[in-house]
Amino acid sequence: MLTHELLGEFFGTCLLVLLGDGIVANNCLAKSKGKDAGWLAITLGWGLAVMVGSYASGILGPAHLNPAVTIAFAVKGSLPWSSVLPYILAQLAGGFIGAILVWLAYYKHFEETTDSDTILGIFSTEPAIRSYLHNFITEAIGTFVLVFAVMTFAKNNLAAGLNPLIVSGLIVSIGLSIGGPTGYAINPARDLAPRLAHSVLPISHKGRSDWAYAWVPIFGPIVGAILASLAYMALPL
Amino acid sequence: MLTHELLGEFFGTCLLVLLGDGIVANNCLAKSKGKDAGWLAITLGWGLAVMVGSYASGILGPAHLNPAVTIAFAVKGSLPWSSVLPYILAQLAGGFIGAILVWLAYYKHFEETTDSDTILGIFSTEPAIRSYLHNFITEAIGTFVLVFAVMTFAKNNLAAGLNPLIVSGLIVSIGLSIGGPTGYAINPARDLAPRLAHSVLPISHKGRSDWAYAWVPIFGPIVGAILASLAYMALPL
Amino acid sequence: MLTHELLGEFFGTCLLVLLGDGIVANNCLAKSKGKDAGWLAITLGWGLAVMVGSYASGILGPAHLNPAVTIAFAVKGSLPWSSVLPYILAQLAGGFIGAILVWLAYYKHFEETTDSDTILGIFSTEPAIRSYLHNFITEAIGTFVLVFAVMTFAKNNLAAGLNPLIVSGLIVSIGLSIGGPTGYAINPARDLAPRLAHSVLPISHKGRSDWAYAWVPIFGPIVGAILASLAYMALPL
Amino acid sequence: MLTHELLGEFFGTCLLVLLGDGIVANNCLAKSKGKDAGWLAITLGWGLAVMVGSYASGILGPAHLNPAVTIAFAVKGSLPWSSVLPYILAQLAGGFIGAILVWLAYYKHFEETTDSDTILGIFSTEPAIRSYLHNFITEAIGTFVLVFAVMTFAKNNLAAGLNPLIVSGLIVSIGLSIGGPTGYAINPARDLAPRLAHSVLPISHKGRSDWAYAWVPIFGPIVGAILASLAYMALPL
Repeated sequence: MLTHELLGEFFGTCLLVLLGDGIVANNCLAKSKGKDAGWLAITLGWGLAVMVGSYASGILGPAHLNPAVTIAFAVKGSLPWSSVLPYILAQLAGGFIGAILVWLAYYKHFEETTDSDTILGIFSTEPAIRSYLHNFITEAIGTFVLVFAVMTFAKNNLAAGLNPLIVSGLIVSIGLSIGGPTGYAINPARDLAPRLAHSVLPISHKGRSDWAYAWVPIFGPIVGAILASLAYMALPL
Repeated sequence: MLTHELLGEFFGTCLLVLLGDGIVANNCLAKSKGKDAGWLAITLGWGLAVMVGSYASGILGPAHLNPAVTIAFAVKGSLPWSSVLPYILAQLAGGFIGAILVWLAYYKHFEETTDSDTILGIFSTEPAIRSYLHNFITEAIGTFVLVFAVMTFAKNNLAAGLNPLIVSGLIVSIGLSIGGPTGYAINPARDLAPRLAHSVLPISHKGRSDWAYAWVPIFGPIVGAILASLAYMALPL
Repeated sequence: MLTHELLGEFFGTCLLVLLGDGIVANNCLAKSKGKDAGWLAITLGWGLAVMVGSYASGILGPAHLNPAVTIAFAVKGSLPWSSVLPYILAQLAGGFIGAILVWLAYYKHFEETTDSDTILGIFSTEPAIRSYLHNFITEAIGTFVLVFAVMTFAKNNLAAGLNPLIVSGLIVSIGLSIGGPTGYAINPARDLAPRLAHSVLPISHKGRSDWAYAWVPIFGPIVGAILASLAYMALPL
Repeated sequence: MLTHELLGEFFGTCLLVLLGDGIVANNCLAKSKGKDAGWLAITLGWGLAVMVGSYASGILGPAHLNPAVTIAFAVKGSLPWSSVLPYILAQLAGGFIGAILVWLAYYKHFEETTDSDTILGIFSTEPAIRSYLHNFITEAIGTFVLVFAVMTFAKNNLAAGLNPLIVSGLIVSIGLSIGGPTGYAINPARDLAPRLAHSVLPISHKGRSDWAYAWVPIFGPIVGAILASLAYMALPL
């Protein structure tokens, strides 16, 4: 039922962004106990965020938690196109609330942190070297791997309930291996919704929300996801 | 049978605190081989402590190992209210013995460690920035995620025996992502029982047991757990 | 069907090398967000690369993704010898494309990196201490463990779909434990195909492709794999 | 059949020690690529060593790979006492060969390493603070947890083939949490057999084999294992 699925997308993406942006907050904010925990901790944190969000969301729907994945499954014919926009809005709403919860959980640490780039980096991705073309390509490659792999995983005969765990490993893999140049949004909701939260919340020492870059982690993932869907459909299965 | 369940809660929480406080001891105590192993090691150590305690305890009972979880399941109607206090006492007793075993295993290293805050930090949580209100909120958010997710996991059709492994990943996730401000007690027994052990054991160089803070990691988790139980019950399942 | 299997070997090895060489790029290239992520991150990255490649490739074939494994299964009698050369060519083609994708994903970071040994090290393995004899022995021992263990894993009654996850843990294990002297190629396609890509791509600041060493990560693994196959066949099963 | 079981114990313990001592070699030896990988890498390396050894050995026998575990199962009545000595001898033989393989794989790095304590530490455990009484207690506590937990795991209805993976997590847990004072032998074969190899191999720069300490990682684990077996048998199952 669509309302059930939308509720699942909403709280699943909320958990995803709370736990995902949370590890970045822990790693970056002043005086946090996990300060400088490192790249491996960040990638494991995001991978487990996907695991928790997927298992939780999975009791009500397909647990996409990602507009690029939703569009890819529509392209593949596994989701009616009429569900796409509602799914995406539910994902964005969940991501927005998740980002607010990160801010609440780390409230005193945001107060103690004065670098505005660090603060934005907890909400949204920023490229290591700004180049819209190459950042776009990197996001597209990362999301191609995500969507192509997720579609093949679904084809395997995994033991009941194992799938979100394997997808979680996939997320860690992409973060470790393709995450270096752009911080791997690979999910428009994960980037846009927290960026919106950043722009409206009264955060101490916050600076610009860098809307000039915002289109890259939206359209890079969508293009990569559509290409992956087409590639998967071309397989002789 | 209640006595079986209580025995399970007792030794499961004992293993949980022995292995959980143990990784903090290893990370913090002078001359320990795992000195400064880092935040990822700490969070993996606590996650695996929950895994071991849950599998072990699970042969005799439901393996809550956490008063906040026990209360949440009573609110949800999955546990008779008459079992709540006995469960909590068994959990506290287990945590108390577990803390003593950490002290025995690291006895010579406690002798070599002279900072009293470090010593207390092995037993109980301490906030990175002291603010009872915000510390309470952080603990409530972390425990909300724990209890809500655990309830959804139980709803999934996981392969036999997979559940404690997934919960273990959840604990790592919460530690990585929400653990920065308070050290994530998210379990009153994990904090109160070792604090009691700290206050009575003849530990070299020990200082105060910081009872002023002790209520936060008790009531923050309980409030978060009750809210999670109510939220889960409101889902259209 | 052979063409299906070859397609599976092709894109599985492509994913393997993209995600595997990717973690080395992330760890080594200038200004990458995962710079100096460390040995554990590298070994987990390669382990997960194998997991993703195996699950994906597994929908079309046996997912060897490694000429040494392919030869070992032919020795054991599990694969017709006529399939061996096509398999290896498909693996090499996949690895070649995977290496190009790493270059594209990290394009701006390759531009910023000036040390030519660092650049080669992202594509191919280099020994820590050059000694053809000892490097050969190390590669043979590592691949012996890989192939012998993979054959025993297949003999276990693993839950459906669990096998690639366990093999992924095996790859991490070999990397952590036997990877120190040579960087553990343990797979000729993983070393030769990216080395070919390195030699033909117009990479900034690139130096020699070190063809003098290239035979070691080809024949060390093959010899180790054949010995493992013979040892496994000698077991009283 | 006993000869099959002994063969399984032999090569399983060989893999265990090769992969376990291997991660210590990688972390400690001069010029190794994994130099200073850290405590988390060491504990994951040992955990995965147990996983690989257990799955491999499991095709021929019960995969104890540890004299303390063998004795504990004999105490519990799950293994005939007549099998105990043959099992232990097979485990010691396997550990001896495994240690030699580490030496071969890292041959050039042993040549470059001049500190004799570092070299011994790759083969056998050394206490961080020498105190036979307290080192004995720490080893006994660690092995108690190992054996008690392993017995409860076997009682769970784990999905087919999942058990060695969970035991692997248990080993990581013990290493992270109880490994700090003594380096967690928790297995006489893992300590004694490589110590024998150390004493007979012509290793450059090697010093004493520290036989004065050798009894601690033999009898500490055995006493802990017997106590765990008795505690498990006392449970109302």
